[in-house]
Amino acid sequence: MKAVGICGSDVHYLRVILLFIVHSHARTKRGVKSASRANIRWILIELQEMRIAHFVVKEPMVIGHECAGVIEEVGSGVKQLAVGDRVALEPGVSCWRCRHCKGGRYNLCDDMKFFATPPVHGSLANQIVHPGDLCFKLPDNVSLEEGAMCEPLSVGVHACRRADVGPEKRVLIMGAGPIGLVTMLAARAFGAPRIVIVDVDEHRLSVAKSLGADAGVKVSTRAEDMAEEIEKIQAAMGAEIDVSLDCAGFSKTMSTALEATRAGGKVCLVGMGHNEMTVPLTSAAIREVDVVGIFRYKDTWPLCIEFLRSGKIDVKPLITHRFGFSQKDVEEAFEVSARGRDAIKVMFNL
Amino acid sequence: MKAVGICGSDVHYLRVILLFIVHSHARTKRGVKSASRANIRWILIELQEMRIAHFVVKEPMVIGHECAGVIEEVGSGVKQLAVGDRVALEPGVSCWRCRHCKGGRYNLCDDMKFFATPPVHGSLANQIVHPGDLCFKLPDNVSLEEGAMCEPLSVGVHACRRADVGPEKRVLIMGAGPIGLVTMLAARAFGAPRIVIVDVDEHRLSVAKSLGADAGVKVSTRAEDMAEEIEKIQAAMGAEIDVSLDCAGFSKTMSTALEATRAGGKVCLVGMGHNEMTVPLTSAAIREVDVVGIFRYKDTWPLCIEFLRSGKIDVKPLITHRFGFSQKDVEEAFEVSARGRDAIKVMFNL
Amino acid sequence: MKAVGICGSDVHYLRVILLFIVHSHARTKRGVKSASRANIRWILIELQEMRIAHFVVKEPMVIGHECAGVIEEVGSGVKQLAVGDRVALEPGVSCWRCRHCKGGRYNLCDDMKFFATPPVHGSLANQIVHPGDLCFKLPDNVSLEEGAMCEPLSVGVHACRRADVGPEKRVLIMGAGPIGLVTMLAARAFGAPRIVIVDVDEHRLSVAKSLGADAGVKVSTRAEDMAEEIEKIQAAMGAEIDVSLDCAGFSKTMSTALEATRAGGKVCLVGMGHNEMTVPLTSAAIREVDVVGIFRYKDTWPLCIEFLRSGKIDVKPLITHRFGFSQKDVEEAFEVSARGRDAIKVMFNL
Amino acid sequence: MKAVGICGSDVHYLRVILLFIVHSHARTKRGVKSASRANIRWILIELQEMRIAHFVVKEPMVIGHECAGVIEEVGSGVKQLAVGDRVALEPGVSCWRCRHCKGGRYNLCDDMKFFATPPVHGSLANQIVHPGDLCFKLPDNVSLEEGAMCEPLSVGVHACRRADVGPEKRVLIMGAGPIGLVTMLAARAFGAPRIVIVDVDEHRLSVAKSLGADAGVKVSTRAEDMAEEIEKIQAAMGAEIDVSLDCAGFSKTMSTALEATRAGGKVCLVGMGHNEMTVPLTSAAIREVDVVGIFRYKDTWPLCIEFLRSGKIDVKPLITHRFGFSQKDVEEAFEVSARGRDAIKVMFNL
Repeated sequence: MKAVGICGSDVHYLRVILLFIVHSHARTKRGVKSASRANIRWILIELQEMRIAHFVVKEPMVIGHECAGVIEEVGSGVKQLAVGDRVALEPGVSCWRCRHCKGGRYNLCDDMKFFATPPVHGSLANQIVHPGDLCFKLPDNVSLEEGAMCEPLSVGVHACRRADVGPEKRVLIMGAGPIGLVTMLAARAFGAPRIVIVDVDEHRLSVAKSLGADAGVKVSTRAEDMAEEIEKIQAAMGAEIDVSLDCAGFSKTMSTALEATRAGGKVCLVGMGHNEMTVPLTSAAIREVDVVGIFRYKDTWPLCIEFLRSGKIDVKPLITHRFGFSQKDVEEAFEVSARGRDAIKVMFNL
Repeated sequence: MKAVGICGSDVHYLRVILLFIVHSHARTKRGVKSASRANIRWILIELQEMRIAHFVVKEPMVIGHECAGVIEEVGSGVKQLAVGDRVALEPGVSCWRCRHCKGGRYNLCDDMKFFATPPVHGSLANQIVHPGDLCFKLPDNVSLEEGAMCEPLSVGVHACRRADVGPEKRVLIMGAGPIGLVTMLAARAFGAPRIVIVDVDEHRLSVAKSLGADAGVKVSTRAEDMAEEIEKIQAAMGAEIDVSLDCAGFSKTMSTALEATRAGGKVCLVGMGHNEMTVPLTSAAIREVDVVGIFRYKDTWPLCIEFLRSGKIDVKPLITHRFGFSQKDVEEAFEVSARGRDAIKVMFNL
Repeated sequence: MKAVGICGSDVHYLRVILLFIVHSHARTKRGVKSASRANIRWILIELQEMRIAHFVVKEPMVIGHECAGVIEEVGSGVKQLAVGDRVALEPGVSCWRCRHCKGGRYNLCDDMKFFATPPVHGSLANQIVHPGDLCFKLPDNVSLEEGAMCEPLSVGVHACRRADVGPEKRVLIMGAGPIGLVTMLAARAFGAPRIVIVDVDEHRLSVAKSLGADAGVKVSTRAEDMAEEIEKIQAAMGAEIDVSLDCAGFSKTMSTALEATRAGGKVCLVGMGHNEMTVPLTSAAIREVDVVGIFRYKDTWPLCIEFLRSGKIDVKPLITHRFGFSQKDVEEAFEVSARGRDAIKVMFNL
Repeated sequence: MKAVGICGSDVHYLRVILLFIVHSHARTKRGVKSASRANIRWILIELQEMRIAHFVVKEPMVIGHECAGVIEEVGSGVKQLAVGDRVALEPGVSCWRCRHCKGGRYNLCDDMKFFATPPVHGSLANQIVHPGDLCFKLPDNVSLEEGAMCEPLSVGVHACRRADVGPEKRVLIMGAGPIGLVTMLAARAFGAPRIVIVDVDEHRLSVAKSLGADAGVKVSTRAEDMAEEIEKIQAAMGAEIDVSLDCAGFSKTMSTALEATRAGGKVCLVGMGHNEMTVPLTSAAIREVDVVGIFRYKDTWPLCIEFLRSGKIDVKPLITHRFGFSQKDVEEAFEVSARGRDAIKVMFNL
């Protein structure tokens, strides 16, 4: 491993536990060698029950799932990779036996083994073992850090695919946080002719505009402002909104998205602010505004790498902070990341 | 007009106003003659402001939109119809100029002129003028009453199309009212191998089972029963639920549908109980359970007629009450219809 | 193995080579035990180079890929199966690493290991080892012979899926041989409201009609009759032809299908009579008649079994000949099968 | 009318007949005024029977269908246009009553009235009357000439839509003539990451590369060179070919496209060189390479105008020759256009 980014879920887990481990997955199958050295280094050991959705952390766990590195060994069955290759890693290993895997939606696999999703360790480690078909070679003009960014970018790409973003779709993005930004970059790369982004924070909006949003609209968190805000959003678009990508995921952002989107349009729920939401679902339904969601991503790495190679997407401005891998670095990194606001993406260089 | 059914929306409007009118739409275009006689007969004249969603009734209006009749005259441009033909009528005339009309989703047309949707008069009249391409000839073995039933059946057909019901989709239907029943019949005709239907009323469930549902589950209106009810529903299906069609449209029915449906499945919102709904949208989204809605239907008459002709669908058991067209008949018909429960469909024979 | 059907490709291979082998695939992975006994029984040993398309037989090979049997042992990782279960077998094991496998089209996998496709042995053997997720439990009311029929039926099912057959599609089937018949049964089960079948042989047409075709049209092999035959076919349909499934695959059958299908319709090429074809492709293209093909099938067993369980498809009339597994039986079976005509499906009961 | 381009079909018709007419279509419906002046100017009067496909010219006919102009009058029902607006014209008026129109594929309408398709006059005239919904306002930064180019560009756009071109599709284009070039520009605008174009002419290939093709491959017209040429084409792509757009439409170009495209890919037949083609259709079918065709286009003007406005497509380099509207100009224009080779698009400025 050479570059590992920090994600909100990592910070969430790390509020309670900071531990790092040079971890070696043992996969004798699928062309990857079994690890012989398990050189574990604890940085901080404190554990309580913690969870994201129904995923519960019960034991010390290595975090990290946004990562790229250099190949040290390859299994005998791996043909497309060689020692020394720089690769980005897709973090989930699915079962390939269930209906989802067979039907091309392997991200929905119930038996997915996914970096840093309990009880599977993450990739914030010096060495890991990973299936060859989930290691994607980076072109010369794409750095390891950019390679690690394929993971968050994949969320945006998968959202754009599910919402069918393309050159005929004017796109509204709710939320200008890290996921809102990668989703905006993806929507642009999919050809969206106009993108309006919405946030409660002026600074974030100005970052979004500097990264390519056509317009930004500042909103409040108050429900009673919604009708007026929708008017502003539609005026900022200057055309019908075909697709809305809610990267915040609150009742208000989702309601805004549902109401602002044109009849026959699509709303994709990306963020996970609230679980239970109070939203005008019937008025969306009778305008045939469809609601789709995403769970992670599938088969996105080749496309992300192509976007980075061709320059259609530049993720470098998203990497706002870089750290080494000493204990001090690590503690500071998580502090910066947890503070949010001025940090978009915090990257470890191992 | 020979057969006109009563719909919930008609009853809704008629709570305030009962008026009938031998009405002649004037359409000089599209091959339909201009009406010369306007023989208006009032039955009851009382008018207040009333509405369904954003449709507001401001003037006396003829109701009725589930109808079939016999051709009396045809315009010179109409080739496929002749005087004496028995036809079912699709009630909406769209603009054919907007993006929705051009894109094959004419039901979303903003300029739709639709029977009994203010300010357009309905079809509960002795004679009406209607575009030839919206009059569909009935085969000999399909009665005028059955022809009128194409309209409610179209709702079920459109829902099944939008939810992609077919021989590989196990279907849950929330609500065993008239719309739940036609949707169930449509799902069966689309090939659904197993259908479970849910209602709060035992009688309705037993009707649904007699009409072809594989299993019925009685539920309460209490939110706290939901988890247990979902278990019962899933047990009644005995397999994963691929598609749920919520023909009730309340927070609880929609929540049940969202939670009960398998990852990667679809929920179609058909009923319109609540507008604002409080539902676990994020947990649906992260299982990629898509939510689609319907607005009326499009291009469903040929398929409905084929289902009736072939016997794949039998709507006759749904017609529980029949009335003539005297003032007494009309008053009684609406009373029966408004009482609900034992009436599924009330039909006027003009 | 208890029931193994003979397919045209088997007969093709067997024109040159007849060999049978109690074969045990060794799959240590995916929950299936490695075979310890390799009890090979040769029946006839003669080998020359032979091929189907680019598949070349270079060594003695066990044939057979339409099969069902009873579980004798299960690997430790297999949860859904138990000793004694009656199962139908999907014959292909794909790599799950390539773009096709990941994208839900595993039938296109370049590394597919498929029964009786050189160099992989087939399943006409007393015992075989096969991945648990490709063994599908049969309901009590579906026999092993019917289970073996899932394989040819899968071809029809996959064709219907690719051509989007459903209750709104009137279907033309070119060719009333075994594949034409299973495709017709599948089209019916997918809800096709009217099916016309075409062949050069009256007997086959009468079989097809007895199995459910709405009409049969006898044609010649002469190109000059085509225009007149298309008129007859369209008259037999009595409506526009939405989908044509060419189960013969000759220039003439494909030309007929392309010309007979309505604008905006689909033609699916199922049979493999000719490789190079001379067809009016431009006149199809400018009517936007799409041409799709099939390679085997994917994820069809659950649906086939459901069709058999529910009685939507009855494959029993297709099994015209049954044989045991003595050398004499085997020779006679292939003779009957190669003679064609009155044999639809020849089944071994092991 | 201010700018009218010459298309191959125009030249085809004009080989026999050159006639120009200040023509006013009479459309009393759909908000367009009836023409009062029919100021007809013949330039050349000679008429024989001539045809394109099944379209036969029987009487003198105005040609021209690639056009833009300035609004002189608007009907009372037209709201979105005003006198003086610069507009591009979509040339076909469909019936809006048939299954194709209602189903969103109005380009397949049997009753389409299309400029310069017998017996409908074209738009190479000083004034024409046309439905308001087929007149698309041009942004300030898009010229009338560019507006006229929306028509040929629409062919490329429709082909890209039908072949599902996007950022994940590597595209092969057969033929670097005018249609090959607009299709290439459209594929680029739809996000194709790599485009290889093929032609028999070095000059055309160099033009294609100067307009944005990533690589060009020169081929012969000899069938026996095909295998080697496919290797060169695949090498030039350096990756699998996902989509091929055959803009020539000969047996050889189509065979090349079918063989060169990856399993699971798509071939779109755009050009119309041969009608009967001899092609390896079975080997394409068993790799599930789908073949789709196009007939004109539907609902493409807004997207074309957006591509021109945003600069994603620049059609100006395609306009190689410009003429006025004197008899001498006209004769010279058609001579240049018929000579082909160095002329891509010949434009009249009226």
